[in-house]
Amino acid sequence: MIPEVQQYLETERERYVEELAAFLRIPSISVGTEHRDDIHQAAEWLAHKLRSAGMEHVEIMETAGNPIVYADWLHAPDQPTVLVYGHYDVQPADAAEGWDSEPFEPIVKNGKIYARGATDDKGQLLIHVNAVEALLRTEGKLPVNVKVCIEGEEEISSPSLPGFLEQHRDRLQTDVIVISDGPMIAPHTPSICTSLRGLAGMEVRVMGPAQELHSGLYGGGVQNPIHALTELLTSLHTREGKVAVAGFYEGVIALTPEERQQLRLLPQDDEQIRKDLRVPELYGEEDYSFIERTTARPTLEVVSVTGGFQGSGLKPAIPTSASAKIACRLVGEQDPDAVMDAIEQHLQQRCPRGSTVELIRSHGGRPYQISAKHPYLQAAADAYGTAYGKKPVYSRSGGSIPIVEVFHTVLGAPIVMMEFGLPSENLHGPNEHFHLDNLEKGMLTSCLYLHRLAEG
Amino acid sequence: MIPEVQQYLETERERYVEELAAFLRIPSISVGTEHRDDIHQAAEWLAHKLRSAGMEHVEIMETAGNPIVYADWLHAPDQPTVLVYGHYDVQPADAAEGWDSEPFEPIVKNGKIYARGATDDKGQLLIHVNAVEALLRTEGKLPVNVKVCIEGEEEISSPSLPGFLEQHRDRLQTDVIVISDGPMIAPHTPSICTSLRGLAGMEVRVMGPAQELHSGLYGGGVQNPIHALTELLTSLHTREGKVAVAGFYEGVIALTPEERQQLRLLPQDDEQIRKDLRVPELYGEEDYSFIERTTARPTLEVVSVTGGFQGSGLKPAIPTSASAKIACRLVGEQDPDAVMDAIEQHLQQRCPRGSTVELIRSHGGRPYQISAKHPYLQAAADAYGTAYGKKPVYSRSGGSIPIVEVFHTVLGAPIVMMEFGLPSENLHGPNEHFHLDNLEKGMLTSCLYLHRLAEG
Repeated sequence: MIPEVQQYLETERERYVEELAAFLRIPSISVGTEHRDDIHQAAEWLAHKLRSAGMEHVEIMETAGNPIVYADWLHAPDQPTVLVYGHYDVQPADAAEGWDSEPFEPIVKNGKIYARGATDDKGQLLIHVNAVEALLRTEGKLPVNVKVCIEGEEEISSPSLPGFLEQHRDRLQTDVIVISDGPMIAPHTPSICTSLRGLAGMEVRVMGPAQELHSGLYGGGVQNPIHALTELLTSLHTREGKVAVAGFYEGVIALTPEERQQLRLLPQDDEQIRKDLRVPELYGEEDYSFIERTTARPTLEVVSVTGGFQGSGLKPAIPTSASAKIACRLVGEQDPDAVMDAIEQHLQQRCPRGSTVELIRSHGGRPYQISAKHPYLQAAADAYGTAYGKKPVYSRSGGSIPIVEVFHTVLGAPIVMMEFGLPSENLHGPNEHFHLDNLEKGMLTSCLYLHRLAEG
Repeated sequence: MIPEVQQYLETERERYVEELAAFLRIPSISVGTEHRDDIHQAAEWLAHKLRSAGMEHVEIMETAGNPIVYADWLHAPDQPTVLVYGHYDVQPADAAEGWDSEPFEPIVKNGKIYARGATDDKGQLLIHVNAVEALLRTEGKLPVNVKVCIEGEEEISSPSLPGFLEQHRDRLQTDVIVISDGPMIAPHTPSICTSLRGLAGMEVRVMGPAQELHSGLYGGGVQNPIHALTELLTSLHTREGKVAVAGFYEGVIALTPEERQQLRLLPQDDEQIRKDLRVPELYGEEDYSFIERTTARPTLEVVSVTGGFQGSGLKPAIPTSASAKIACRLVGEQDPDAVMDAIEQHLQQRCPRGSTVELIRSHGGRPYQISAKHPYLQAAADAYGTAYGKKPVYSRSGGSIPIVEVFHTVLGAPIVMMEFGLPSENLHGPNEHFHLDNLEKGMLTSCLYLHRLAEG
């Protein structure tokens, strides 16, 4: 198939860039309510594009929030089904924040297209729509069944998506989910993300005396809630950088020697990171490298702490309470609720005399992980290899994308995170852009991927 | 002597109340610059009062700030010299803060005079001036030499006083310093304060990465300055409530069995304190009672802690730094600089890997302590015993009054803190008042004291 499709993609190159520019001109900002019309316009633009690409059952499906655009093509009866996820909403953008051009007036310069949403996610989602179009126009059919599900609330944490997936579980049934909404690990280094860390967010509050106390008149006589809090927080880690909470590591899956070898191959310069952060040394769990610690190992970070008078100067008073917020990143089979249970028990058992402690839970999201050997992932690796002339590396993200785990849980299908952006493309910042070279190679990768899936 | 003087004090009773009211009518607030004229008016009122009381060399002495009023009577050549310290400035007062009457329109109700400055310190300082007047009018002379030094900046931390004492060291030379500027321990329980704790105030700052880091992408890979800070703060105490800093207790003077017995006699209900503070238990150094811990033992209190995002919600980011402020209360011969040196060394030695720590010093004041057996203090005890019909108890204050230690250091004389206020008199708050009963008993105590000093 390939020479014909490749030829088509090359011929239509200009049009794809023009279409992307048209899509980028719509300021479909999901934060706030000001751009509600633009949101709907973007959904309609996308529905039209899907129809003209040859997709069927195109539908703008309403939710309590912004609509989700759905389409499918289901004429490959003995073949697997692929569901492509993406989002048509974008971050806000203010020209005054340092943009060299208007954020919603796309310009092409040095092989890059500049506009809000270029890499996140309009450029990346169109890769798959254009691939479907190219295959249908040149081959008259798709090698596999394809469903497309593009939401408009990703930048505001996808409030409507979980309910939508539950409600339309049957219609969305799929064998594999493809998401292209992030950066490859480095330029010219295609990568497939094989894991995301989960998240458990909570607040610890230590209560002390009922009123603020003069440190001269009461100091030494009562438990100071700041002392109690710092003692509790310190007890959460060992001196060797491990989390000291019993049960915390339950569900963590040990890295195999092969996975460790994979991580060692990633382009990563620890000494450069140390210099950039201007710290005396990098630090964390012994026996693990920086990249292992930040992607494949769980962590418990106290992200804020507050107690006592917060103004300038020294107010010598013992406060009534002190508090801290904690963000845990989870891996493997760790369960956010079980982790918070374990932390709560740990804190209660160690609560210093003369004070009380409580844990307030705020966030929970499971980690997601897929084996690099999974056939649907290997198919993507092959496609990248052909399109980029280079096998992709398998990366792990230390961050958390809650919708990935929601897709996985509700639809029960593996997720292949095929990245076509670059870390330097300034998503969420000024001068966001997308490399047109990756648009082209991405479309070819997507076409090759669908073929490769059909080969089993 | 006494019947005659006592008779005089009784006869002049009304006038003393009227004079105190006149003094209280002057809003001599030292905070801010609005009341500069009132400050000068109060200084002049006092100079006039001292002159009419029979004091000599009355002088309003200028300083870089508010003037200090000086006077003396030095015609008892073989007798000791007493220097009386007080302050004519007052805290601000706003009728809207809950006053039942105007703060600068004194009223007498149920044997108490209500006005800003009534107990702090205009009522208490006039006790000694009136005592001098009564002795001079009835006996024609004083039994000892008397110097009076009344400042106008006590409520703003006495910035000019240390320099003034240094500059006029010879003129102020004395055998004993009397200060009446605090409350007796309980109603009908005359007390002499025999110790004040010193103060060492400082800030600890822990520095981490040069920029704020996403806890997903960096969590587990670098030292979190909040973790480093809480670990350092926790290391400052043992699990038994002692300060764990090597050298911290240097200079602490152990309580004698007799002193401990004295403290046991003070009216103090630990269970009531626990209930009032609504804490599960009181807490502190083992083997010491609450009152011992809060007055006779040193303490290190972390009075504030700050790190990370301080708004609502959880921002999962590792901050660039975290900090805490510490107030130490010191006793015996502890030296604030040595204590801060010890803490700094402790912190530097334990600074967790991957971070740096610095100590910023802000306050230092030495503790003050006088033996209850000191003859000048025993003389005061005798005077109280006669005037109140009850021997005073010896109290220790957990707070710090830096000028006490400055007087002691510069003039090299013992300080007798004769208290005539009551803890309930709301100094610094609304409805500040002073019990006229203590004005009368106080004047008698002061007369008896001067006589008792002459007896050696």
